[in-house]
Amino acid sequence: MVRTGQGPGRPRDSEIDEAVLGAARELLAEVGYAAVTMDAAAARAGTSKAAIYRRYRSKAELLFAAAVHSPAPAPTADTGSLAGDLAALARRVLSDMTTPAAREVAPQVVAEVARSPEAARRLRDVFVSGERAEVDAVLDRATGRGELPTRPDVATVHRVLGGALFFSVFVIGEEPDEAALADVVDLLVAGLTTRSTLPS
Amino acid sequence: MVRTGQGPGRPRDSEIDEAVLGAARELLAEVGYAAVTMDAAAARAGTSKAAIYRRYRSKAELLFAAAVHSPAPAPTADTGSLAGDLAALARRVLSDMTTPAAREVAPQVVAEVARSPEAARRLRDVFVSGERAEVDAVLDRATGRGELPTRPDVATVHRVLGGALFFSVFVIGEEPDEAALADVVDLLVAGLTTRSTLPS
Repeated sequence: MVRTGQGPGRPRDSEIDEAVLGAARELLAEVGYAAVTMDAAAARAGTSKAAIYRRYRSKAELLFAAAVHSPAPAPTADTGSLAGDLAALARRVLSDMTTPAAREVAPQVVAEVARSPEAARRLRDVFVSGERAEVDAVLDRATGRGELPTRPDVATVHRVLGGALFFSVFVIGEEPDEAALADVVDLLVAGLTTRSTLPS
Repeated sequence: MVRTGQGPGRPRDSEIDEAVLGAARELLAEVGYAAVTMDAAAARAGTSKAAIYRRYRSKAELLFAAAVHSPAPAPTADTGSLAGDLAALARRVLSDMTTPAAREVAPQVVAEVARSPEAARRLRDVFVSGERAEVDAVLDRATGRGELPTRPDVATVHRVLGGALFFSVFVIGEEPDEAALADVVDLLVAGLTTRSTLPS
């Protein structure tokens, strides 16, 4: 993607980014996922549909970014331990999943993934890779502290942590409380810090 | 639910059970979740709608049972170790999740859980409790073998294992291969067998 130079009177890219996400969130709350259109998002954001498509290839991508997290989520703060970092990450992910916007979008993402392997691949490339980068940074720090006997597979940790939270909220329909969240993190930390070898 | 006595000329309950589930599976494959009706399932099964409602309180329950698993899934075979039992359970659950019928039903279950707290509660009472009973039996055997320093919370183990599989198949859209499945199970077993205390 080539960004053109910005004249003094034009909104900056970051302003358009924010306007587009804000417009998408408003529309989601007002009309629901099915009725949101790229045209309406562009009009509400005061920009062009082309400007939105330069950022998101589909409505599913736009609404995921607006409702759940951006393609590059902010890194988890360094709490000084793997247990602390994973607890902080789990709380952040749970909080991302339980907003009204996320509750509106998540079932649609599952439907989209089931309907279209191409949409699933794009969502993986754009959003899952961002989530795994975040997990990877946490595992990097733990490795640096000497907390991990072996380097875990980042996809496994992502599956277990993201899966436990998603499954609880959206499949079982039971949001984990602090104790349940702590128990999942504790189990994960115990597993990660005691495995002597990765299975082949 | 009161079962009436069966005369010699009437189909037995277990025959009706199977006919209803078979009819639901056929209809799912032929017309898809949205177009299945309880009337059509009754007609196809050669029974009454009342007979279906004695077994399942809603279309969602009938189709979950037909496509994924019964309210009381068969117990996991005793393989002689926690690692073996959890691997067998994980393979069974993955296989249950990846049939064409389950792929048709799972997104609808997520949509139903998001739409109706009452439907979510029923699905938990009927199906999640069956899944947790299965996990519980595996943990009971491991406790009996002396493999577990403490009794784990069954809901945590269910969330982690079920969640990792569901998330992979239906959210990431990436079915875990044997190595990925083994890595999840290995992490879980390492965590369960080394935790010295449950977090409070």
